[in-house]
Amino acid sequence: MSDTRTNSGIDSISVFRKMFTWDLPGDRVITVMTAGNLATTQSVISLLNERCKIPEERNPSILEAPTLFQVAGIVSKTLLEVIQERINAGQNAGMFGATLIVAGQIKGTDPQLFMVYPEGNFIEATDDTPFFQIGETKYGKPILVRAYDPDMSFEDAIKLLVLSFDATLKANLSVGFPLDLQVIARDELKVHTEDRLDAQHPYISAVSEGWKAALRDAFQTLPKFEL
Amino acid sequence: MSDTRTNSGIDSISVFRKMFTWDLPGDRVITVMTAGNLATTQSVISLLNERCKIPEERNPSILEAPTLFQVAGIVSKTLLEVIQERINAGQNAGMFGATLIVAGQIKGTDPQLFMVYPEGNFIEATDDTPFFQIGETKYGKPILVRAYDPDMSFEDAIKLLVLSFDATLKANLSVGFPLDLQVIARDELKVHTEDRLDAQHPYISAVSEGWKAALRDAFQTLPKFEL
Repeated sequence: MSDTRTNSGIDSISVFRKMFTWDLPGDRVITVMTAGNLATTQSVISLLNERCKIPEERNPSILEAPTLFQVAGIVSKTLLEVIQERINAGQNAGMFGATLIVAGQIKGTDPQLFMVYPEGNFIEATDDTPFFQIGETKYGKPILVRAYDPDMSFEDAIKLLVLSFDATLKANLSVGFPLDLQVIARDELKVHTEDRLDAQHPYISAVSEGWKAALRDAFQTLPKFEL
Repeated sequence: MSDTRTNSGIDSISVFRKMFTWDLPGDRVITVMTAGNLATTQSVISLLNERCKIPEERNPSILEAPTLFQVAGIVSKTLLEVIQERINAGQNAGMFGATLIVAGQIKGTDPQLFMVYPEGNFIEATDDTPFFQIGETKYGKPILVRAYDPDMSFEDAIKLLVLSFDATLKANLSVGFPLDLQVIARDELKVHTEDRLDAQHPYISAVSEGWKAALRDAFQTLPKFEL
């Protein structure tokens, strides 16, 4: 799940998609989510796109790489290339940083999930740490830490993501509706579900309102501190 | 409420108090809470202390200033003085930054609450924004935003603070038990309640366990996303 708000100062807020998918149904599905400098992430996505169309230019492209590990490597090299251009122009790399999540599955291999750092190195999710957050991560972390369960269903995981984003949306203006949602299921090798949820989406309002009421009730049931 | 963990790297974690009180019962009560560089905040507190004992050195001291606004001014000047010493030594001011909360009441004036920025300027809490957070603020903010109510009792406010700290403690190692708690009630001109709560304190465990169970139940009652 990703939000769609970008800002360069509080008076320049826009809606930009931060979730991008490349697929060859039956062979592979690759989804990249982005956080950080918008010019950087747009350049990375455009370069990945171009190189899928003219694969002779850079071999292999993410549509040809044999493993998702190699796809993550291509994405991270592309990110470094974009940031290096800024460094070559004498600018401060830190201002142009971006963090990416690379998710998906390639036929004959397991589904995988990577997080690419602004420095261009990357890590893979494991059983111990099976999810990643990028961008404005702190507000939405406590509910993930509390409620995540490796055995939860996709449906419950989506409910949890909505709650995590809801906490963030209520606390920070740099995160905003609509939210993009995607589910990739093992061995389908295509996108299982894709949806865009705005603030008025019935599921969003049901969860947000329901949670608000449930928290209020829960708060009342907790014991009082005796002064 | 303040935690007591300080760290310079993950292998150097210590317990230090971050809440300090000066009082002249019947005349004034002043409490300062600190976040940021420990050497800086300890120097600020030590200088404030020294100058209360030898007030001729700097007039007025925080025990003599006629208003809490002036107390906040003295605290912020002291903070700037400590940071300026690092700048004069050719060091990077950003590494030595600290943020402070100044709370209390002086006889004949209303209770007031100030937040002092690392730059040495400060703001006052108002009816619109009646509370401040400093330090690792993001994890604990969503529950404050959701559950804070200007009409809530001291007892409920303490419950809410425990929940806010509980969310932070569960998500971030740089915040740790024990928690220092203090209540200053209008026109008492002394500390009303002071307590140190460790992880095993019966109230902490009751709230933390009760909240965990309540969230789990609330999560189950929310509608499922239909895939």
